[in-house]
Amino acid sequence: MSKKVTRRQFLKTAGAATAAGAAMTIGAPAIHASQKYLWKMVTTWPPNFPVMGEGAVMLAKWIETMSEGRLKIQVYGAGELVPALEVFNAVSSGTVEMGHGASYYWAGKSQAAQFFAAVPFGLNAQGMNAWLYAGGGQQLWDEVYAAFNLKPFAAGNTGVQMGGWFRKEIKSVADIKGLKMRIPGLGGKVITKLGGSSINVAGGEIYSNLERGVIDATEWVGPYHDYLMGFYKVAKFYYYPGWHEPGTVLESFVNKKAYEALPKDLQEIITTAMYRSNAWMLATFESKNNEYLYKLTHEHKVNLKSFPKDVLDAFKKASVEVISEITSKDPISKKVFDHFTAFSRKVDAWAKISEIPYYTSIM
Amino acid sequence: MSKKVTRRQFLKTAGAATAAGAAMTIGAPAIHASQKYLWKMVTTWPPNFPVMGEGAVMLAKWIETMSEGRLKIQVYGAGELVPALEVFNAVSSGTVEMGHGASYYWAGKSQAAQFFAAVPFGLNAQGMNAWLYAGGGQQLWDEVYAAFNLKPFAAGNTGVQMGGWFRKEIKSVADIKGLKMRIPGLGGKVITKLGGSSINVAGGEIYSNLERGVIDATEWVGPYHDYLMGFYKVAKFYYYPGWHEPGTVLESFVNKKAYEALPKDLQEIITTAMYRSNAWMLATFESKNNEYLYKLTHEHKVNLKSFPKDVLDAFKKASVEVISEITSKDPISKKVFDHFTAFSRKVDAWAKISEIPYYTSIM
Repeated sequence: MSKKVTRRQFLKTAGAATAAGAAMTIGAPAIHASQKYLWKMVTTWPPNFPVMGEGAVMLAKWIETMSEGRLKIQVYGAGELVPALEVFNAVSSGTVEMGHGASYYWAGKSQAAQFFAAVPFGLNAQGMNAWLYAGGGQQLWDEVYAAFNLKPFAAGNTGVQMGGWFRKEIKSVADIKGLKMRIPGLGGKVITKLGGSSINVAGGEIYSNLERGVIDATEWVGPYHDYLMGFYKVAKFYYYPGWHEPGTVLESFVNKKAYEALPKDLQEIITTAMYRSNAWMLATFESKNNEYLYKLTHEHKVNLKSFPKDVLDAFKKASVEVISEITSKDPISKKVFDHFTAFSRKVDAWAKISEIPYYTSIM
Repeated sequence: MSKKVTRRQFLKTAGAATAAGAAMTIGAPAIHASQKYLWKMVTTWPPNFPVMGEGAVMLAKWIETMSEGRLKIQVYGAGELVPALEVFNAVSSGTVEMGHGASYYWAGKSQAAQFFAAVPFGLNAQGMNAWLYAGGGQQLWDEVYAAFNLKPFAAGNTGVQMGGWFRKEIKSVADIKGLKMRIPGLGGKVITKLGGSSINVAGGEIYSNLERGVIDATEWVGPYHDYLMGFYKVAKFYYYPGWHEPGTVLESFVNKKAYEALPKDLQEIITTAMYRSNAWMLATFESKNNEYLYKLTHEHKVNLKSFPKDVLDAFKKASVEVISEITSKDPISKKVFDHFTAFSRKVDAWAKISEIPYYTSIM
């Protein structure tokens, strides 16, 4: 399937979506199974963004096919209908029915939201899915988002991210002091705490800022996305692991009233499509990352480096402090993080005799 | 949701399922969207078997809800309609429309089938999903099963299994000699190659055989299932890791003619429900295993042991030999295994800088 064509087809049909159509479906009372819905999904991703943007388009397509066209969702890239960081508001207010992003973008709305995306030194993809799908995490997420009239779903996962691209070698924690790094969220706060600066740079400007030395380092995603950005041409050192994002959950959310107004079959279709999207994205990341890691290391001779132990230890200590500062001030953040931590401890005990010795045995 | 009640409800409605109903749906030509299908799913699991059996019932329920009851699937435990090991034949021949099991049960039909379930020292759950969903594995699986008129889907994953319960400590590879162990499949062939015996014992008889010393050891699944079987009462040593099954794929398959006769929406509903089932089962295994590992180690003081390095090395060497014996004689097995191996190598290179340092950093 060509995602580009599919997206264009959707955009072409956008003319048929009226504001009245949206108003009709949100909060409508009695619904017949034959009723048609024309929804809009706004995303935080540039149009056709690899994996995330493609996945959002596929999600809409699966829902349309499963519902025989009764629920048709037009997908918009960031800025096509609303700017990336307005996605949450647009769905919360009911201007559009669906959004797609990552919950740490909404820390300004709710500090607790970010724990459903990524926690430094927290759970990896398998752990996040276990927590959300079978450990009580989803119920907490529902609670946090319900305050904004939203119903959230896990709709993807990046897997373990990379630590980022650095122009200079990081030999010890002293090298973080004065470091200007493009790293948002909790990871950025950690860098700041260690004497560096977390610089906010729009996606399209990172490359040139890194090339010109306006920033010394940047994190992005993993080998596939980082390769496409061309960072290997302007930064010599590629660090692992991505301690700040060990398995970032990508999300899609639905306006709660719009969701509740749907008949049961369409609700179940949406819910089930989200699981598929989550599994598809993680599998695609794993498959693409291994392919592009090979390109980076074999074709472009990229210098892979592990963060020194004292640096990782300092990152870990600072992460605990950064999170404590949030949870000590915000009861719902504390509730979410305490639950997350209790679940993580048991998962870690199990990983010690399952995933860890598995990996040791194959290496 | 009470799975037991749901299951009973299904069994109650079974009276409405006629043989004519099944014949009508298989190979039926023109299909209207409003047409109703009453299907049967036979499984290799005892009725209400935790996770696998529960998951099969939920899979049917999701499909029924998404299709507004147009595709209703009655789920049968092993022996309720056909014996466990007749599931493949029953669906292949079109006697029933769907099956649920694990592909290594069908090694007697096709040696290549087993590589889609578990390979000793092969891929874990994340790797298997990457291979099947985004690495070309599904296409090979389709090819292998098409010869039997079946369309296969990944419908679950156990995660890393445990190495098993042993009455005596395994101090070196010499202790495998003469060992009578209940371990089927490729793992069993490895034990035999090292001088032990792979004993076939039905699920219901393992406990008493282990208690009476008829067998010296048994593998089963992981902490949750192993706890329910009570093995900790009769075997002192619990070994890890489950080298023989590092991330077993559970499958569901559909009679190919029946699948192709469905309208597109119902095909997409089935496909999507399979992804959900896969994600739900793995998450549930991870969550339950960590919970029951805690019970085993804290309440029952179970003696967790890692296989000594020389034993794992011997298992690995013997695994390579066992697999070579299969692939050297069967071209389609060779094709599948070569593809699997090439994909594994790249995934392993990526794991070395992602999952492995992630796990190291949190421990």
